[in-house]
Amino acid sequence: MYRSAASLLFVLMVSLVAAAADRPNIVLIFSDDQGVDDVGCYGSEIPTPNIDRIAKQGIRLTNWYSASSICTPSRYGLLTGRNPSRSRDQLLSALMFLSESDAHRGIHSDEQTIAGVLGQAGYTTALFGKWHLGHGDPAFMPMNHGFQISKGHTGGCIDYFTMTYGIQDDWYEGSKLVPKNGYATELITEEATEFLESQRDATKPFFLYLPYNAPHFGKGWNPSKGETVNIMQAQAKDLQRVASIRDKVRREFAAMVVSLDDGVGRVMQSLDQTGLADNTLLIFLTDHGGDPTYGGSNRPLRGDKATLFEGGLKVPCVMRWPQKIQPGTESDAVLSSLDLFPTFCEVASVDVPASAVDGQSLLKHLVDGDPVPSRDLFWQTGQHAELDRGSWTALRRENLKYIQDQKGREYLFDLKRDPNEEMNLRQQDPVAFDRMRGHARQLAGSLAPKE
Amino acid sequence: MYRSAASLLFVLMVSLVAAAADRPNIVLIFSDDQGVDDVGCYGSEIPTPNIDRIAKQGIRLTNWYSASSICTPSRYGLLTGRNPSRSRDQLLSALMFLSESDAHRGIHSDEQTIAGVLGQAGYTTALFGKWHLGHGDPAFMPMNHGFQISKGHTGGCIDYFTMTYGIQDDWYEGSKLVPKNGYATELITEEATEFLESQRDATKPFFLYLPYNAPHFGKGWNPSKGETVNIMQAQAKDLQRVASIRDKVRREFAAMVVSLDDGVGRVMQSLDQTGLADNTLLIFLTDHGGDPTYGGSNRPLRGDKATLFEGGLKVPCVMRWPQKIQPGTESDAVLSSLDLFPTFCEVASVDVPASAVDGQSLLKHLVDGDPVPSRDLFWQTGQHAELDRGSWTALRRENLKYIQDQKGREYLFDLKRDPNEEMNLRQQDPVAFDRMRGHARQLAGSLAPKE
Repeated sequence: MYRSAASLLFVLMVSLVAAAADRPNIVLIFSDDQGVDDVGCYGSEIPTPNIDRIAKQGIRLTNWYSASSICTPSRYGLLTGRNPSRSRDQLLSALMFLSESDAHRGIHSDEQTIAGVLGQAGYTTALFGKWHLGHGDPAFMPMNHGFQISKGHTGGCIDYFTMTYGIQDDWYEGSKLVPKNGYATELITEEATEFLESQRDATKPFFLYLPYNAPHFGKGWNPSKGETVNIMQAQAKDLQRVASIRDKVRREFAAMVVSLDDGVGRVMQSLDQTGLADNTLLIFLTDHGGDPTYGGSNRPLRGDKATLFEGGLKVPCVMRWPQKIQPGTESDAVLSSLDLFPTFCEVASVDVPASAVDGQSLLKHLVDGDPVPSRDLFWQTGQHAELDRGSWTALRRENLKYIQDQKGREYLFDLKRDPNEEMNLRQQDPVAFDRMRGHARQLAGSLAPKE
Repeated sequence: MYRSAASLLFVLMVSLVAAAADRPNIVLIFSDDQGVDDVGCYGSEIPTPNIDRIAKQGIRLTNWYSASSICTPSRYGLLTGRNPSRSRDQLLSALMFLSESDAHRGIHSDEQTIAGVLGQAGYTTALFGKWHLGHGDPAFMPMNHGFQISKGHTGGCIDYFTMTYGIQDDWYEGSKLVPKNGYATELITEEATEFLESQRDATKPFFLYLPYNAPHFGKGWNPSKGETVNIMQAQAKDLQRVASIRDKVRREFAAMVVSLDDGVGRVMQSLDQTGLADNTLLIFLTDHGGDPTYGGSNRPLRGDKATLFEGGLKVPCVMRWPQKIQPGTESDAVLSSLDLFPTFCEVASVDVPASAVDGQSLLKHLVDGDPVPSRDLFWQTGQHAELDRGSWTALRRENLKYIQDQKGREYLFDLKRDPNEEMNLRQQDPVAFDRMRGHARQLAGSLAPKE
């Protein structure tokens, strides 16, 4: 009897391990404030050979929407598969690291992340980089939201050289605040490659989330004023590689991009060297549009980060999955970062939890080119007095997009004919305008959590 | 007759070359905002093994005064051998790069520099680094003040990574403004070592002036406000070497110091590798005291940069001259940066021009330990509304020091008994006080140029 049970257990374990080994790894690289004009294969003058290589070896998506045009809600949507308008703390603006009230806001334990779901399904889950879903309370932090391993910063940005927000330390290893010096982009890359090396012979698949802070501006310190200051923080060697860009801020931004792209390259190299590449879905995308004040560019799209014009929402997204995604594929299907949660579930053969209601799995589209059913894409941003931002609302349904900006101005665009949102159809097509506005208002009312 | 003249010429040339080869080279490394507590061999916690090595192989001077506690006048005094109070444009404050009026001020062609004197005497003269003696007009710039070769910035500080003052380019090669990216400290070092390599087989001696901007703060750019911002600009690799320093600003400052010290080390290595070391007087000193707001320290001395307390004026100064200066020497003689002009003249066997009236040659003190005759040391700083600085006056005579600060407060210290200026003797010794005040006022009146 004993022997029989042991044999059974052995068979069970072997098959479990085999199943685990079959399940693909997922590496999700998520950059910050990098617009469609800031990635080489999307037309940027900034060289990003490694990101471009993901596209060449996989798929380049040309109609990819972020879950928000602002950091915190974009990350909320990415990790929960839920429209940020549903978030319990109404995370529709950037959580501010030094704000007293924001210390009490963040992602809650019942707002399930993809890391939590994959972890429960046997994945090793790791985060290296920026969190920005709550900093004031350990309850908000990554290790309490599904990440078994986490190292990085909780605030929206960091001093790239001292891992401080201004002068305040903000680099955690799990729940432990640790002083750190180096260059943030390189530190994140080093953690990633060390992690991948540790997974070389692992029996479990892994989900590696790499939210680089780059090429977002750094949060420096003005010693004479005793206050934080937003500054570009590029390294000498990277500046020399983009020296042909004459505008100082754009050049510094570009230097931060090439450092990030180096990181992507090193992650790809690690995947190759560890033999993990073939069984890994590798994704690079950005959190939302770039901020031209700090060197980003969303040309030719209208609008920037924190607006709900296309420039704020439409982002570069490339994926590679050898033997699954056909190399050199392009798709202009209308897709969203909200879709990654259910996609990852399907990739990992896990049921999508009921909470992740706002996306749809892209697996068959990515692998087989199946069409993606049309659905509404809806965005809201919140008031943010400190950043002088007002509330926006936008809805994309089929090719129409309705926008209400922070000053209450309203727009209707036909993105098929007018992808750069130059012609407001509000007067020209009042029926469609009213219909879209009605839908948007209805969604705005229905998504917010009922207390 | 022809042959005879040719022979004579040949003999003359050989002897000239021999004389030239005999005349020592001079390398003057001049750092920025680095106080007595910012150099290892003066007691700092910041490691500066290379600067310390100069002292070990030569002399460490413990009572060295800069010509001023402010950048521009300090450099004026260093290079002209004249008290800055004599300067035609009354260069008693820092020239401000963005000030319209300061664009018309600087060092004038009749204010002879040591570079000009040595150049006329057959020296090759080169400057790599910070000028800060006039930026608005080519007439003020280094190539018109005796430097045959010059590369660097004209303003008081620079963005270490983009060689801009804020967003405005400020890196010149001779009279040509050139865009430049890298790390300022390393660029200056590279220029220096390339220059030294070029001098390996030179028949002429050289004067190499290396006014590093380090460890002065950098002049960054605040993109959202569209204005310059003073920030610490350290490199990742250097920060990691001083990670034990917990205070962020001090750590960044220290990282900038170790990078500077690396530069000193590379210059020393070049001198060795080229075989030039033995015939080179190598000096490291700083322009004035450190600025604690930006991480500098002058402890235990009272006062800082821009004050005329000891902390503003007394600076680290070490020299090495193999076979001339006894290794491991120390001297507490009261010496001044104004003394370098006549010292260099004597080293180069050149008559001191009549203009350089305020120093005295230290050659016999350095080489033979001869005592240095006592003399008055007098300092004045100017009003500087933009930097919220008022005018100071100070006089050291023997061990007494009189100070009038920017608010008109007056002090008398006995530096022999009270080197840290803790006990004001004004009330206690009114006779000495009145005498010193009288001397100071008389000097203030007599030094200013008569128009």
